[in-house]
Parts: sequence; C-alpha cells; structure tokens
Amino acid sequence: MGLFDDDKVDLRVLKQRAGNMRWATVPDGNIPLTAADPDFPPAREITEVMIEFIRGRYLPYTDMEGIPGLREIIAQRLDEKKGVSVPVDRILLVDSAAAAMRAIAGAILEPGDEAIVFDPVDFLFGAAVRAAKGKIVYFPSVHNDDGWDLEGLEAFVTPKTKMICLCNPHNPMGYVYSKEELKHIAQVADRHGLWIMNDEIWSDIVYSGNRFVSISSLGKELNRRTVSCYGFSKGFALAGMRAGYIYTLDREAFDKVLPVASAWGVDVVTQVAMKAALEHAYYWVDAFVAHLEGCRDLVYNRLSRMPLIDATKQQATFVSFPSIQKTGMGSRDFVDWLAKEHKVHLVPGTKRWFGPGAEGNVRLCYGTSTAILNEALDRIERGLIELSDRKG
Amino acid sequence: MGLFDDDKVDLRVLKQRAGNMRWATVPDGNIPLTAADPDFPPAREITEVMIEFIRGRYLPYTDMEGIPGLREIIAQRLDEKKGVSVPVDRILLVDSAAAAMRAIAGAILEPGDEAIVFDPVDFLFGAAVRAAKGKIVYFPSVHNDDGWDLEGLEAFVTPKTKMICLCNPHNPMGYVYSKEELKHIAQVADRHGLWIMNDEIWSDIVYSGNRFVSISSLGKELNRRTVSCYGFSKGFALAGMRAGYIYTLDREAFDKVLPVASAWGVDVVTQVAMKAALEHAYYWVDAFVAHLEGCRDLVYNRLSRMPLIDATKQQATFVSFPSIQKTGMGSRDFVDWLAKEHKVHLVPGTKRWFGPGAEGNVRLCYGTSTAILNEALDRIERGLIELSDRKG
Repeated sequence: MGLFDDDKVDLRVLKQRAGNMRWATVPDGNIPLTAADPDFPPAREITEVMIEFIRGRYLPYTDMEGIPGLREIIAQRLDEKKGVSVPVDRILLVDSAAAAMRAIAGAILEPGDEAIVFDPVDFLFGAAVRAAKGKIVYFPSVHNDDGWDLEGLEAFVTPKTKMICLCNPHNPMGYVYSKEELKHIAQVADRHGLWIMNDEIWSDIVYSGNRFVSISSLGKELNRRTVSCYGFSKGFALAGMRAGYIYTLDREAFDKVLPVASAWGVDVVTQVAMKAALEHAYYWVDAFVAHLEGCRDLVYNRLSRMPLIDATKQQATFVSFPSIQKTGMGSRDFVDWLAKEHKVHLVPGTKRWFGPGAEGNVRLCYGTSTAILNEALDRIERGLIELSDRKG
Repeated sequence: MGLFDDDKVDLRVLKQRAGNMRWATVPDGNIPLTAADPDFPPAREITEVMIEFIRGRYLPYTDMEGIPGLREIIAQRLDEKKGVSVPVDRILLVDSAAAAMRAIAGAILEPGDEAIVFDPVDFLFGAAVRAAKGKIVYFPSVHNDDGWDLEGLEAFVTPKTKMICLCNPHNPMGYVYSKEELKHIAQVADRHGLWIMNDEIWSDIVYSGNRFVSISSLGKELNRRTVSCYGFSKGFALAGMRAGYIYTLDREAFDKVLPVASAWGVDVVTQVAMKAALEHAYYWVDAFVAHLEGCRDLVYNRLSRMPLIDATKQQATFVSFPSIQKTGMGSRDFVDWLAKEHKVHLVPGTKRWFGPGAEGNVRLCYGTSTAILNEALDRIERGLIELSDRKG
C-alpha cells in the first residue's frame, strides 16, 4: 500500500516515455539503472495541480520573476529545509540545474579562464565550463574514510583560476560535505577571489545519520561570489519538466548572472509544477528517501558480497559508484559486456560522463523498486561470478 | 460561435496568468496591447493531449532528439506549409525561439565578432548577440513602398562581421521578405562567408495577398551557414510553454550549433504540446489568421483616420508599428501618457525594445478580440484628438 511498493512502477508507461538511456531506449527484458531519474511517478498532487491549471486553457508568458508566490515558497523551503536564508529577489527560475550551470559558467568565465572541476563528478560541470570557453582544471578528489581530502585543493589555483565547481551532495560519490569542508572550500575561494558554482540538485536525498549543509549557510561574507542552483529532477521526480532555480546571497553576484540566465523564461506549466511540489509534495519526498535508504542498503550489502566489485555506502543521492577494477576490464567494456550478456545497463565511469578519475568505476542508479533492483543485482552477481570463475 | 468571437477572451483567467506586461500586470480597466501573446487560448486539442499525457503520471527525461515522432512531424509541416525540405536529423528542439537565438549566436560568435542586426527589430536579436559577447552593428532598414531597401546591406560588412540576423516575417514591421530580397541577403552572406541567424517565429501569421518565403527554400548551396529557428508562441498561442526548434540544411552548421543548444533539453509536456499543435491545430491557426486579418484591417483603417499617427498595413505578424512622430512626443513619453491618461498600454519604440531606429514609433499587439481592440482604439483616438486639439 506504499507509494514505493514494487507494483507502483508502471513499466508500460516508462517503456513509452523514459528516454535518455532508460526504459524506452533498451530492449524488452533489459533493466536500465542509468540516468538518475526515478522509476516512480511524481507525487499525485503535482500532476493534479498541473492538470487543473491546463484546464484553464491559457498558457501565456509569465513574468520573468515567475508566477505569483513561486519565489516566495522557494525562499521559505530553503530556509525551513536547508537553513539558507535568501531574499526572494535573489532567486531566479531556470529550466533545469543543467541550464543553471551553463548560465553561471557563462556569466562568470571569460574564454581561457580556468575553473576547478572535482574529479570525478557529473559531466554537466565540465560541459558548462566548456560551453563558456573556459578551461577545465581537474581536482582529483581523494576520498578517505574521514571524508574528502580537500587539503590539496588550493594547489590547483593559478592566476587564471576564476571558479570552483561544487557538487553537494556529490554525484556520483553520494557524499555530503561537512560544514568544515565547505568552510575550507569557501576560504580557498575567498583568498583567491574565486567564484563558486554550487549545485545542490541532490540536497533532498540525504540518508539518516547524515545532514545536508549548504555552503550558503556559512553566511553572506564567505558567499559573496557563490551562485547556487537546484533542480526538481531528483527529489521530486520531475526530470522531464526542466524545473530549477538559481539563488545567491549577494546582490552583485545575482546581477552578474541574471542577464545571462534570464533570456529564456521558464515554461508556465513547469512553474506550476514547481510550486505544487514545494507546497504539497514533501511528504512524498520523505517517503521516497525512506524507500531509497532501503535501496541504498540493499545495493551496498549485496554488492559487498559479490566478487570483483567494491562498493561504498552513499550518504546521499540515489546513485552508487562501485569500483570494478578487480575485473580487469575498463569501465566502458564492463558496461557493454553487462548490458549484452546480462541485460543490465549502467553508466560507465568514463571521462565523458564523470572525468578522467572515474575510470574503473561504474554508476548504478537505484531510484527504482526493490523488485527491479533485486533482479538487476541478481544479474550483476551472476555476471561477476562468471567473470570471477573465468579468472580462476 | 467562432473560436475568436468576443466572448472567447476570458479576462478572468488572463488577469491571473498573463504576465510580461499583459493583463495580470496592469490595473483593472486597462488594456495591454503589449507583449505579442494572443488573448485567446490555444486550440483545445493541444491542451487535451497535454492533460491526457499528464494523466499518465510519469514526466521523465526524454531523449535529446525528443519524443518519438516530433521531429518527423516538424519536418513534414516545414515541407508542406513552408516549402522547406529538412532532414529530421537537422532539427533540434529548443525551449523557445529566444533560447534558440541565444544558442545560435553563442555557437557562431567569438567575443568581438560583429553581427548585423536590422534596425528596428525585436530586442531578442541584440540580446542574443550581446550574450555571446559579440558586437551589434545596426543596419538601418529603409522601408519603401516596394519593400525594404537592402541595397545598403553589404556596406555594413567589415572584416570582423560574422553573422547577419534575419527576422522573417519581420517584427515589428509586419513585413514578409520576397524571394529576391532573401536571395540578395543570402548572396551578401555567401560572398563574405557570413552566417545567417534566421528567425521564423512569425511564419504562420501571414495575410492574404502575401506569402511567406523561407530563406531556406533557396536551397542548400546558399544556406550552408544559415541556422533557422521557430517558436510556437505566435501561431499556436503557446508562449508560456517555451516551445521551439532550430533547423539547418547543412550538417556542419547543425553540428556547430548542437553542442551549445542541446544542454538544456526541452520539457516533455512542451514536446507533447508541440506535437499536438502540429498534428491537430492547423485548422485553428487558419481561423486565427482569418480573425487577425480583420483585426489588422481594423487597426490600419482606424489609425489611418486618427490625427498625429501614421500606420502601415502589416503583411504578417499581429503587431502594428505606427509612427507617433507628429505628436511631438518621444515613444516612451507617449506610451506612458497613453497608459496613464487613457489606460491603453503599448510598447515604446525605444532602443531597448527595437533598436535606435525605432524611436518615434510604438508597437501595438492586436492578437485580441474585435471588442477589446475597438475599445482600445476608441481610447487611443480620444487621446490623439485631445493632443491634436491641444496643439491647435
């Protein structure tokens, strides 16, 4: 009877609609654990409000500031849920976190400017820097048991560095940064006059025992050049709606990004969906995170018992990023082999998707039902045992 | 009983929803003839298909190529309706013509490159060039009875020129270019190796006796560096859905624009709306154009009988751009005075909205009912008579 029971995944609809390497793009019988888009539909309240709005027939231009009350509820939820106090007039609606990152990089970087991109991290950071004709400087992240070793960060700053790209919670490592780590990053940026592009798209998916801290909660002084973004794809299952926002604590920072980001305007139905999500769907997010925590444990526990694969336990996100180095296969080859032989699709840890430091890992999205996940893990296990036996 | 009868404008909903200088932003009793967004809702078939889709609950990522069949129907309609034959794989979905223009300029211009922008023309052309850090070179358009005098165009080409921006049909002049004029523009571009950014957002709103010709219909050879865009805001009344596409005839041109334009992806519900529009709503467009032709005549005939204002008769679009120079007032002052004293809102012909050559004109959007238009024209007439009397 739960929202995330096995029978709540409607494969008939997903097979028609879910593109981007998911159900609609793989042959029948294949399981895609690829793009980070849940296999569950969004909260019913969101789609009901959208339908009610469309019944009113008119779909006109809105003000650039958005439909009445939308920025207000964003500010309210940022305060309540994430401890970030943002004036309403420093919130800008955008049509996805991806677009936000493009706009932020475009506003801040001049051609040739360097931007520090953690390695590994989601490909959209590098894509944003490249689109702005900036130069990506990879910061190879070392992940200790104590957290990320950020000590080396400052050594990557050069006179040409203009920006640090932060992904918190971190995709694909499933990591939340501590207040101390964020302070370290903010202080490095501050010492060198660098901007921080801060993506918080995963900030609603954080597991018990961990706490999301926003770098913005460190206050205005350390965030004079921080521009943050959020998208509704992960926590609210609205990936296809292209819904997101940018926020800054600093007026000048906002004014710098505004002209680059504001040309597009955001779809009125998407705005209605965002507002409905923030007003009515946090009960759904809470239930989703509870379900996902079970999935996280399932993936971690089962992978930990399989040969040739090494998993870490995510603090946040619904992606796992295990190492398959012991298989002796490259990430691309492993993923191709697994899809062909065992009909489970993962994202390879290639430079294209996550940076050069991702090689040897694969990303597995577990935003699905327990049944689908168990079937996929059964297949992965069979494959790994087969590989292990072959290696002798 | 018609789709565009006076009682089909639902001011109750418009006053809640229509932002961007329209009904929701002006005091009660005021009439906004400002942003070019119709006062009629879109075809019922479009909203019905959208609702049906949302009832399926899932709103996932789509492929970057779009939902199945969408690019195919775009190609088919371009061929049938506009005589343009485009391969499906040279069509890219974007979230509005505005975003398309940003992407095109961003892909083509390096900082400092010059782009020729006709003057006057809609502000989005200049905004796109500026966002790409390009330099706007205004080409002052002289509008004869025979059409536009394009002879002088080539004189504005310098070694730094990289692109010509074309708006066809032309907003705010309401002009369609002839095949010969387009050939002249294409040849100038070809001689100097220039790109053409070609906006066809108004191409469905063309009045009897005139014919829209796409520059792309001149064929591949002359369009090797032409990148065109279209939006669903005008012809299909879907401004708030942020729906549009880019197309090129040339593979290399497409590949140049693709990486810049494709980061965002287009809202799945918007894609559903685009497909429904092209499949089911051309009957609506035809009826809308017939209604608008009556409005065009009404505006032209009535303005022509008023003092201190000089109107031209649009061949296309649903905006009029009369001169108010004889009032002795600047465009901004005239518009402010008219809003304050007579409660009709127009867009001033200021540099910000249309370029430096727009001064002395005002833009009047007539995508509304005959009743609203007559009331607005009554008020404008009273105002002009008052001004005329005052001048003695």
